[in-house]
Amino acid sequence: VNAEVKTIQFQKNTTSPFLMNCWYVAAMSTDVKGEELFHRTILNKPVLIYRKMDGTPIAMLDRCPHRFAPLHLGKRVGDDISCLYHALQFDCEGQCTHNPHGNGLIPKAAKVPTFTLMEKYGFIWIWMGDEAADPGKLPDYGELMSGHPNSVAQTYMHVNANYQLLTDNVMDLSHIDHVHGEIISTRGQLSPLIPKIQENDRMVRAGWEWKQTPAMLILNQFLPEPQTEARHFFDITWTPPSHIQLSVGATQTPEVQLNLENCVGQYDLHTTTPETEDSTHYFFATRRNHIEEDIEYNQMKIKAMHEAFETEDIPILEMVHQQMGTTDFLGLNPVLMSNDIAPVKVRKALLKLIAQEQQS
Amino acid sequence: VNAEVKTIQFQKNTTSPFLMNCWYVAAMSTDVKGEELFHRTILNKPVLIYRKMDGTPIAMLDRCPHRFAPLHLGKRVGDDISCLYHALQFDCEGQCTHNPHGNGLIPKAAKVPTFTLMEKYGFIWIWMGDEAADPGKLPDYGELMSGHPNSVAQTYMHVNANYQLLTDNVMDLSHIDHVHGEIISTRGQLSPLIPKIQENDRMVRAGWEWKQTPAMLILNQFLPEPQTEARHFFDITWTPPSHIQLSVGATQTPEVQLNLENCVGQYDLHTTTPETEDSTHYFFATRRNHIEEDIEYNQMKIKAMHEAFETEDIPILEMVHQQMGTTDFLGLNPVLMSNDIAPVKVRKALLKLIAQEQQS
Amino acid sequence: VNAEVKTIQFQKNTTSPFLMNCWYVAAMSTDVKGEELFHRTILNKPVLIYRKMDGTPIAMLDRCPHRFAPLHLGKRVGDDISCLYHALQFDCEGQCTHNPHGNGLIPKAAKVPTFTLMEKYGFIWIWMGDEAADPGKLPDYGELMSGHPNSVAQTYMHVNANYQLLTDNVMDLSHIDHVHGEIISTRGQLSPLIPKIQENDRMVRAGWEWKQTPAMLILNQFLPEPQTEARHFFDITWTPPSHIQLSVGATQTPEVQLNLENCVGQYDLHTTTPETEDSTHYFFATRRNHIEEDIEYNQMKIKAMHEAFETEDIPILEMVHQQMGTTDFLGLNPVLMSNDIAPVKVRKALLKLIAQEQQS
Repeated sequence: VNAEVKTIQFQKNTTSPFLMNCWYVAAMSTDVKGEELFHRTILNKPVLIYRKMDGTPIAMLDRCPHRFAPLHLGKRVGDDISCLYHALQFDCEGQCTHNPHGNGLIPKAAKVPTFTLMEKYGFIWIWMGDEAADPGKLPDYGELMSGHPNSVAQTYMHVNANYQLLTDNVMDLSHIDHVHGEIISTRGQLSPLIPKIQENDRMVRAGWEWKQTPAMLILNQFLPEPQTEARHFFDITWTPPSHIQLSVGATQTPEVQLNLENCVGQYDLHTTTPETEDSTHYFFATRRNHIEEDIEYNQMKIKAMHEAFETEDIPILEMVHQQMGTTDFLGLNPVLMSNDIAPVKVRKALLKLIAQEQQS
Repeated sequence: VNAEVKTIQFQKNTTSPFLMNCWYVAAMSTDVKGEELFHRTILNKPVLIYRKMDGTPIAMLDRCPHRFAPLHLGKRVGDDISCLYHALQFDCEGQCTHNPHGNGLIPKAAKVPTFTLMEKYGFIWIWMGDEAADPGKLPDYGELMSGHPNSVAQTYMHVNANYQLLTDNVMDLSHIDHVHGEIISTRGQLSPLIPKIQENDRMVRAGWEWKQTPAMLILNQFLPEPQTEARHFFDITWTPPSHIQLSVGATQTPEVQLNLENCVGQYDLHTTTPETEDSTHYFFATRRNHIEEDIEYNQMKIKAMHEAFETEDIPILEMVHQQMGTTDFLGLNPVLMSNDIAPVKVRKALLKLIAQEQQS
Repeated sequence: VNAEVKTIQFQKNTTSPFLMNCWYVAAMSTDVKGEELFHRTILNKPVLIYRKMDGTPIAMLDRCPHRFAPLHLGKRVGDDISCLYHALQFDCEGQCTHNPHGNGLIPKAAKVPTFTLMEKYGFIWIWMGDEAADPGKLPDYGELMSGHPNSVAQTYMHVNANYQLLTDNVMDLSHIDHVHGEIISTRGQLSPLIPKIQENDRMVRAGWEWKQTPAMLILNQFLPEPQTEARHFFDITWTPPSHIQLSVGATQTPEVQLNLENCVGQYDLHTTTPETEDSTHYFFATRRNHIEEDIEYNQMKIKAMHEAFETEDIPILEMVHQQMGTTDFLGLNPVLMSNDIAPVKVRKALLKLIAQEQQS
C-alpha cells in the first residue's frame, strides 16, 4: 500500500512579486538542443525545458514530487523523463507513467506541474500563471522574421539586477549619448527632446525624431551621403510584462515619413525575464533592413551589441541595483525629469496590472 | 579587584533544532593527532577537541569566556590550553587555572563548558546535552571491531545538506539501482519489495531479502559460483539521533538463514552529525567478513565507497536540500511511496524524541 | 515640464547604530590623488571623495539623486562631477548645475548630500551627522606633525570586524605579550599592573609604568645601555567616537618623569571608521622622537607595524567578531578582568553618547 499521497503547494499568483498571467522568454530556441535537458530558474521557480523527439519544446517544474531531486539530472526515456534518484518517470504532461517501487501503483498526486510554451521569433516563450495561456497576449513581432535569415540574430545576457531597471534603461533612451560610445551617439540631439507618448492599459509607446550630422555611425555608411545631415527616429513600444520593441532609422530623403519603410534602420526586441527579484534573464533580437544577406556583418553586429550591453549598460544597472537595496524605485523618491516620462508610465502600468492580478 | 564576572548564556536544549541528550560522532579517532588542537562546529557550536598527554580525548567550547577568541588558536601547557589573546589558561575540566592579569585572582565564572567524550569503534563520540552523559544510549557496534584490523575502515565526508536527508538516503535503499553503478546493483530486484519493519520508540529496523543473478559485484567474487544466482539480504537499524547500522550479504548455500554468519558480506555504520541545520558531518565505517587480512583490498574498498558517496549520493542530496529551501521535508507534502515507509518512520520517531526533550 | 520632484530620504541619526555628530577619518591624504574620484563606504553610506583643482578635498554621497548611479563612475568637469548615466552635473556643494534633458530646467530636489571634511595629520576627516560640523570636536594631534617629516608615517587596513573590537584591543594593552612577538614584549611586566585611569564624558585615559630588562626591542637600541634595565610607560587616551592616542617610551635616566620629553619613544594615533557594523577602516599614524631624519628607517617601521596589525591583531579580532555573532559585547556577559577596565569604560561612554544623540 502506498503511504500518504499529497501534492506540493506552490506559490499562488497572489503572493508573487511578478505578473504571472503573461508570456516571458524562457530561452533562445538554440539554447535547447537535441535531447539535452536544459534548466533555468524563472520567476523564482526551477524549470526544466527539453524538446520531444519531434522537436516540440516542453517545460515543467524541475523538481520531482517525491523527494525533490532536480529532474534535469535524470534521463530521457523517449519523450518521458526518468528521475535520477528513484526512477519515477514522467511524461510531457507531467504525469507519472512508471513507478518501480512496491506494487508499482502510481500515486494520484505524482504529477509535475507543467508550463505552456510557444516557440516564436527565435525564442521559447513560457506562461507560468494560473490562468489558461493566452496566445493573444503575445504581441506580433513577425517583423523580426520577415527578412532574409541573415538579417536577424538573437542573444542572451544574465544580469544581477531587477528586471525593471532594464526596462527603464530602454524606455529612457536619453542615456545613449552618455553611456555608449561614438557608434550610436545622437551627438546630444536626443536629450532635449520630449518624446511623443501614446498609452493604454497594456501599452506605452514613445517616439523621438531629430536631425544630426553625420548620421549615427551604425547607419550612416548605408546612406547616400555618409558625412552629411540625416533625419532620424526612435519608436519604442512596451507591452507587459517586460517586452520593448524598438525601431531606429535614418534617411536623407526629404519629407518622407520616418519609419522603417522609408529609412535605413533596424527592428529590435528587448525583453527580460525575472530569474529572481534580484537577477534577470535579458534577451535581445535585432533585424536590419540593409545588407540583409551579409552573414559576416550579421555575426559582427550581434556580437558588438552583446558586448555593448555587457560592458556599458549592465555594469551600471547592477551597481544601481546594489545602491538601491530595494526593487521599489519609486519608493526611493528619485529626482525625475522629462526623460523619465516613458519609464515611469511603464512602471506604474505594470504595478497596476500586478495589483489587478493579485486581487482577482 | 576583578570587574564584573558573569557567564555566557548558552542555547538551552529547549531552543535547539537537534536532539541534544544523545551521542554524535565528533571526529574519527585519527583526526585528533598528538598535541594538535582540532576544532569543528557541531550542533551549531564551535568545539575544541584534543588529546591529553596520556591520549584521552577532551572536548570543550572553542571560545574563551573572556573575549571570545577561539581556543584552538592557543597553545598547550601540558594538558591545559592557554588562550592566544590574553593567556588565560584552562584545564581539561574547562576551569581557569591561570590569570596573568592584575592580582591574578581567577574569576569564578572563568570556566569553559566541556563535553563528555567516549572513544569507540574508531570514532570519538560527543554528548552535548544538558543531562548527564549516558553511555547506555550508544548502541553496541562491537561487531565493527571484532575481526582482523585490516577488515575494518572509517571515512569522513562534509555535506552541504540537512543530516536527515542522509538518514533518508540510507533508510531507503531503493535508490541504489538508480544512483549507483553496476557494482552494487540489485538488478531491479530491490524496488518492488516492501521491507519488513520492526520498530519501537528508539529503533526502526528494515529488512529485505531477494535473489539476483549474478550476485552484487562487490560480493560475487567471494561466492563459489560468481556468475550464478545468489540469495541476498539487507538489514538496517536506525537508532537516534542518526546512526544506521547496515548489514548486507549473499550466499549460494540453500536454506540457510540470511545473516552475516551464513553469508559473504559486510557490517557497516552510517552516522551523521549536524554541523548546522544546513550542513552535516557524515561518518562511515565498514567491516567485511572475507579476505579480512588483505590490507590493500581494505584501502581500495574504503576509498571506493568514499568516492561513491562523494560523487553519487552527496551531489543529489545537496541539490535536494537547495530545492527544498527548508529542513521540514514532511511539511512540503512529498508524494510518498512504499520505499518511503522506513525513512518516514524514522523522521517521525526523531521528531517525537526532539519534542519530548524540549518539553522536559 | 519636469515630472515629480522629490528627494531621497536618508537614515536619520536616530536610527544609526553609530555616533554621527563627530569626526571620523575618511581616507589618508595620499589616498585621494590628483583628479581621481575616490569612493568608500563610511557609516553604511557610499561616499565620493575628490580634490578640487586647488587641492581642497570634497565629499558627497556617491549616488546620483536621479537614478542612483554611483557618481564615482562619472567624470570631472572642472570641479563638478558629471554622472555617467544621464550626465546630470553637480558642483562641490552637491547642487545640480546642468541638466541636458528636456528644457534643461534643474529640478529643485536635484541635490546630492555633501559632507564636511577637514584635512589634518595626514588624514582627511569627515563629519556625517545632521548637526553643523564642529572643528572643536577633533582633538589636537599636532604632536604627530611637529617633528621632521621623515619621523612620521600613516597606514590603512581594512578589517572584517566591528570597530569597537579594535578600540578594545588598543585600550587593553595586556594582549601585547601574548599576541605580538619579541619586538614589543614587556616580558610579562604589563599584565599584573592595574592602569591609572582618568575619565570624563568625552575621554578615557589609562597609564602604565614599569621596568624591564632589556627595554622593548623597538626602543632599546636608542638607549645608552641597550641590554640593561629601563623604565617604561604607556599613556593612552580615547576620545569619541574611536580615536586613541597612544604614547610609549623608555628611559635609563633615574628619576625623570616618564613622558616623551624625557624618553625615547613614539606618539601614535589609532583611529577607526565603521564601514558597516561588521567591517572597519583602520587608520594608524606614528611619529618617533629619535633618528627622525632617517627615511629608510621610517619606511621600514611603518611597514613592520602594518604587518604586525595585519598578521597578529586583525586575524584574532575577525575571528572574535565571527564567534560573537553580534556587536553587543557586553550583552554576551563576558568574564571581565582588571585588564578590561579601560575598554569597558570606553564602551559604556560611547553607548551613552550614542543614546544621548538619538534622544536629542
